[in-house]
Amino acid sequence: NHVSTMGRNMVNQRADVGWQSSKSDSSGVSNSGESSKESSRCSTPVLDADRTDRLRDKMKRRIESGDHWFSLEFFPPRTASGAVNLISRFDRMGSGGPLFIDVTWHPSGDPGSDKETSSMMIASTAVNYCGLESVLHLTCCNQTKEKITAHLNKAKRLGLKNIMALRGDPIGEDWVEEDGGFNYATDLVKHIRCEFDDYFDICVAGYPTGHPEAESYDNDLRHLKEKVDAGAHFIVTQLFFRAETFLRFVKDCRAIGITCPILPGIFPIQGYHSLRQLVKLSKLEVPEEIMQVIEPIKDNDAAIRSYGIQQAVEMCKVLLASGEVPGLHFYTLNREVATIEVLRQLGLWAEDPRRPLPWAVSAHPKRKVEDVRPIFWASRPKSYIYRTQDWDDFPNGRWGNSSSPAFGELTDYYLFYLKSKSPKEALLQMWGEELMNEGSVYEVFTNYITGQTNPSGHKVMCLPWNDDALAPETNLLKDELEKVNRRGILTINSQPNINGKPSSDPIVGWGPAGGYVFQKAYLEFFTSSENVTALLQVLKKYEPRVNYHIVNVQGKNITNAHEMQPNAVTWGIFPGREIIQPTVVDPVSFMYWKDEAFALWIEQWVKLYEDESPSRMIIQYIHDNYFLVNLVDNDFPLDSCLWQVIEDMFALLDSPRATQEEGSQS
Amino acid sequence: NHVSTMGRNMVNQRADVGWQSSKSDSSGVSNSGESSKESSRCSTPVLDADRTDRLRDKMKRRIESGDHWFSLEFFPPRTASGAVNLISRFDRMGSGGPLFIDVTWHPSGDPGSDKETSSMMIASTAVNYCGLESVLHLTCCNQTKEKITAHLNKAKRLGLKNIMALRGDPIGEDWVEEDGGFNYATDLVKHIRCEFDDYFDICVAGYPTGHPEAESYDNDLRHLKEKVDAGAHFIVTQLFFRAETFLRFVKDCRAIGITCPILPGIFPIQGYHSLRQLVKLSKLEVPEEIMQVIEPIKDNDAAIRSYGIQQAVEMCKVLLASGEVPGLHFYTLNREVATIEVLRQLGLWAEDPRRPLPWAVSAHPKRKVEDVRPIFWASRPKSYIYRTQDWDDFPNGRWGNSSSPAFGELTDYYLFYLKSKSPKEALLQMWGEELMNEGSVYEVFTNYITGQTNPSGHKVMCLPWNDDALAPETNLLKDELEKVNRRGILTINSQPNINGKPSSDPIVGWGPAGGYVFQKAYLEFFTSSENVTALLQVLKKYEPRVNYHIVNVQGKNITNAHEMQPNAVTWGIFPGREIIQPTVVDPVSFMYWKDEAFALWIEQWVKLYEDESPSRMIIQYIHDNYFLVNLVDNDFPLDSCLWQVIEDMFALLDSPRATQEEGSQS
Repeated sequence: NHVSTMGRNMVNQRADVGWQSSKSDSSGVSNSGESSKESSRCSTPVLDADRTDRLRDKMKRRIESGDHWFSLEFFPPRTASGAVNLISRFDRMGSGGPLFIDVTWHPSGDPGSDKETSSMMIASTAVNYCGLESVLHLTCCNQTKEKITAHLNKAKRLGLKNIMALRGDPIGEDWVEEDGGFNYATDLVKHIRCEFDDYFDICVAGYPTGHPEAESYDNDLRHLKEKVDAGAHFIVTQLFFRAETFLRFVKDCRAIGITCPILPGIFPIQGYHSLRQLVKLSKLEVPEEIMQVIEPIKDNDAAIRSYGIQQAVEMCKVLLASGEVPGLHFYTLNREVATIEVLRQLGLWAEDPRRPLPWAVSAHPKRKVEDVRPIFWASRPKSYIYRTQDWDDFPNGRWGNSSSPAFGELTDYYLFYLKSKSPKEALLQMWGEELMNEGSVYEVFTNYITGQTNPSGHKVMCLPWNDDALAPETNLLKDELEKVNRRGILTINSQPNINGKPSSDPIVGWGPAGGYVFQKAYLEFFTSSENVTALLQVLKKYEPRVNYHIVNVQGKNITNAHEMQPNAVTWGIFPGREIIQPTVVDPVSFMYWKDEAFALWIEQWVKLYEDESPSRMIIQYIHDNYFLVNLVDNDFPLDSCLWQVIEDMFALLDSPRATQEEGSQS
Repeated sequence: NHVSTMGRNMVNQRADVGWQSSKSDSSGVSNSGESSKESSRCSTPVLDADRTDRLRDKMKRRIESGDHWFSLEFFPPRTASGAVNLISRFDRMGSGGPLFIDVTWHPSGDPGSDKETSSMMIASTAVNYCGLESVLHLTCCNQTKEKITAHLNKAKRLGLKNIMALRGDPIGEDWVEEDGGFNYATDLVKHIRCEFDDYFDICVAGYPTGHPEAESYDNDLRHLKEKVDAGAHFIVTQLFFRAETFLRFVKDCRAIGITCPILPGIFPIQGYHSLRQLVKLSKLEVPEEIMQVIEPIKDNDAAIRSYGIQQAVEMCKVLLASGEVPGLHFYTLNREVATIEVLRQLGLWAEDPRRPLPWAVSAHPKRKVEDVRPIFWASRPKSYIYRTQDWDDFPNGRWGNSSSPAFGELTDYYLFYLKSKSPKEALLQMWGEELMNEGSVYEVFTNYITGQTNPSGHKVMCLPWNDDALAPETNLLKDELEKVNRRGILTINSQPNINGKPSSDPIVGWGPAGGYVFQKAYLEFFTSSENVTALLQVLKKYEPRVNYHIVNVQGKNITNAHEMQPNAVTWGIFPGREIIQPTVVDPVSFMYWKDEAFALWIEQWVKLYEDESPSRMIIQYIHDNYFLVNLVDNDFPLDSCLWQVIEDMFALLDSPRATQEEGSQS
């Protein structure tokens, strides 16, 4: 009665003694000797299998349930700004629910380096910061074993768990087989299994029409069988243009005993020239019936794209209908539109993805048990992951226990995946070529909330603390946010209170079906010290309903947090589960966030202006003198009182008595 | 900026570096360098200071806040049934909120032994099973150092943290001081501090009129000063009859430099003879004004008790009004009425105690972080504590993490604190001298729920699984429970669903003020295998709304629990805190509970009847053939569907179709 759950064998030794009287194992009746996976661990996250399974197991489950999947192939970018764009493409395309993505290996581009454009870094970023199950390509041709092992070790260290083992193209014409070297992908597969045992899931390439260099199609099939026998877990094929090409190939593979999943490589034709180039590189022939359609419209890009989508959809439909194809692999060429359109038409694109938690989960194996984060980084999750990347464990899925959290240094604004997607010119257009006074800054915040154009005719699409548009749930608070930003409550984070909405709610829902989600109202903003003085006066009336943390750049910290305990502000109740509380207002990490939040004024905004310019001095003044405030309304079943708190603050500031008092003190 | 919180120094090293720019410490402004107590620990219990502080610290806080307290002194019982009664008295008197209780040391009664009547066992039970802060008396006269150290080590091992250090009465007339032995309480205090450093909080005795054997009152005061200087933390005085006696004593103590708390020993006169005996033992003189009142009414017990209460109340009022008395210590003589009445009149008795958690918290230091329990032991918390007493730690306040919980052996029904308070005869009267059939058992359960008398004229005050009357919240379900018990759904545990009631709710509330508590509806019962067959059929309609575990005595287990994860069924949301989820339905511990729940049929009920008697065979049959079922309705915001589930089950059993099917199968 040892039950293997999620790839682990866990045996309840004690239970074995007492509960074994009955061994009945009829369907629906689980024998009592079965041990609970994490039976004695309470208040743990719901570890959805998708979060913990290995790629091979995810495929197995999908094949068993008959759920078709898709995967997406990308190549590393050439420039740093290309990397920034690719990473945000990962976020966008990740939302459609690929089973995995893969990143190609370019031997000439220093693929294993720490460069922001390297294959290794791009794949690592996809895993760690975008939460995508990722496969890193690796070619072995002309490489020493030491070099390959070093690459694999680095990949493992970075949290990569899957390798696409390839031979790669020999460099130069004079390539000959080396004795004991890597001459074929099979050698690489063997090496990976030899050096890393079962750690990596391994993918190998299949050629539906035979490898161009293979002696024969049959010979190539035998090579493929060798690769699989050496320890590969699944096959992705080279692109092809006819469904029957692939289906015959699968049939032939099965005939010689290849049993692993075989994923067809799909290439939606996106342009005449890219097709020509690809065909040349891959030594494929484009079927006559396709050339006949394309040639006449070769100068009409839109028409070709439209045809490419239609052609891919129809081929995919045939493939999926065959019952031989569990998932589709897309050669995206780093583009979004065509692939997404094909997936939409196939019904494979997740239009309204269910969120397992309110924040995007990292795919690094070390973080799989992580289930709580401070709310402060809600709009900067990559920064949070970066700054906590050295945490060795997340006991009970949480942060280090009795010791204080050791956040990474505040250098994240140098990292490509945290750079603003907008160039300096665009930021100046949004945030003001020239600022007149603090009120100009209030206007920028207000315009970001309202979506209105500023006087120079530009929409404010981002702020230093929010590189994206307002979250849907923040939109619920739009009117109130606009009102307070106009008066100098410069909001950078907020959430409405939620009193038991279904977990399926399209805006605030998350977690398994049949549950209920809750939130306490939260508001975080910068504001002047005058406002803070009045606010503190007002907050006395709201004890203990409202918790606050107020801090300036020097670290002067004012709070009413009970013994500096964290305050849970997002939680969910689910059928048959423990409570999940993924978001907290944590007093300690707020002090680390404070450093980052204030630094963003400087790093992203001040630096737009010339030294000594009035604009620069205005932002610098705000950085030096404003306070960062966060407020939680603990009374989640009632309407949020936080707007009333702000109104009371302004009322106090406007009241003659307050003015009198100030007058008499001066 | 090292901040000592709750007696521990915790320094946030990392924070020290970054946050020290401001050192302002003006009131209301906590310097940011302050470290959070458990800042990085999420989903932890609210450790109320009362749960974690040492006794000396609790006193300090109460003195600072001006909250008067009371404490209660008991002596160990002579018989096992006396012990059972005393333990339930601890539970009742504990509900009034004593700051601590203390248990006297009887050198002639094997006080350090494992006997159920020993001082050591009684004090240990008070701490571990009744959750009472307890002080164990210890006398040193005629004892070797080794023996004393052994007692102290045992006390420490059992979770006792406080010692009342006494000399004790020398046995025999020929006592002489021993060199290097324990001649005075001071020697014992020194020994405790020498051998156990600061581990124990130490109390010593004060004599407001001087110790009877002391050379003089002043000499005795000097002795007391020595005891305090040797390391005692507070003083409890011998009883006295006039407030001024105590107040003068305190003044004299303060004059010679005794600064620790001095608690007056209060003795409400409860009878003429007990007063005479006590006075003789303690060599005290009863003041003339008291004797004049008492002598004339010495045969009227009620009148003397009434006078004793009135006299004690008036004296206590003077003491408390003096400002010199932070708390009152009561010599209860193991009786409840007089002491409780005095405390009620003084307004010190907690009429409606706030529960920190829905279950009674053990006072063992090891368990102070415990904050979740399986619901199964809700009516048998002492059994749960007993069976988990060997658990070394409660990581994050929870059960051992990845390993399975190791429950103690099922021997608890031999333990005195788990024995039924009712003797065999009373149990027979309640549960039936003679059972006719299973229906007779249904009637016993039904009568327990309704409180009606059974045919022989007795009320069913307890069941093997419930030694007390129905809990107030179970009363909310009374009508439904009655209905189903009548038909053979033999309920032993249940709770209603609660969707956000205030934490101050008198029936279901718990935890800090200003919070909201929640529950999922829960029902646990024994029922026949025929019923279970129909129930399983019905439950299909209630997926995934209802979770169930169904098990028979052999351990055949049927469940739809998701990967055997625990299901949180009680939780609370509080201002500025993390979520607390103190009660879960845990699949693994259910299998341990099952053993206990089935064993109680045998241990408590079967054994009432003669071998081979029909009554015995009926209970034995139920034990052997019935199933134990628990049901959770996950949809806590809606009315519980569990009664409908049961109704559907009976409807299915009653339907002709079901009968037909059964017929066709046979």
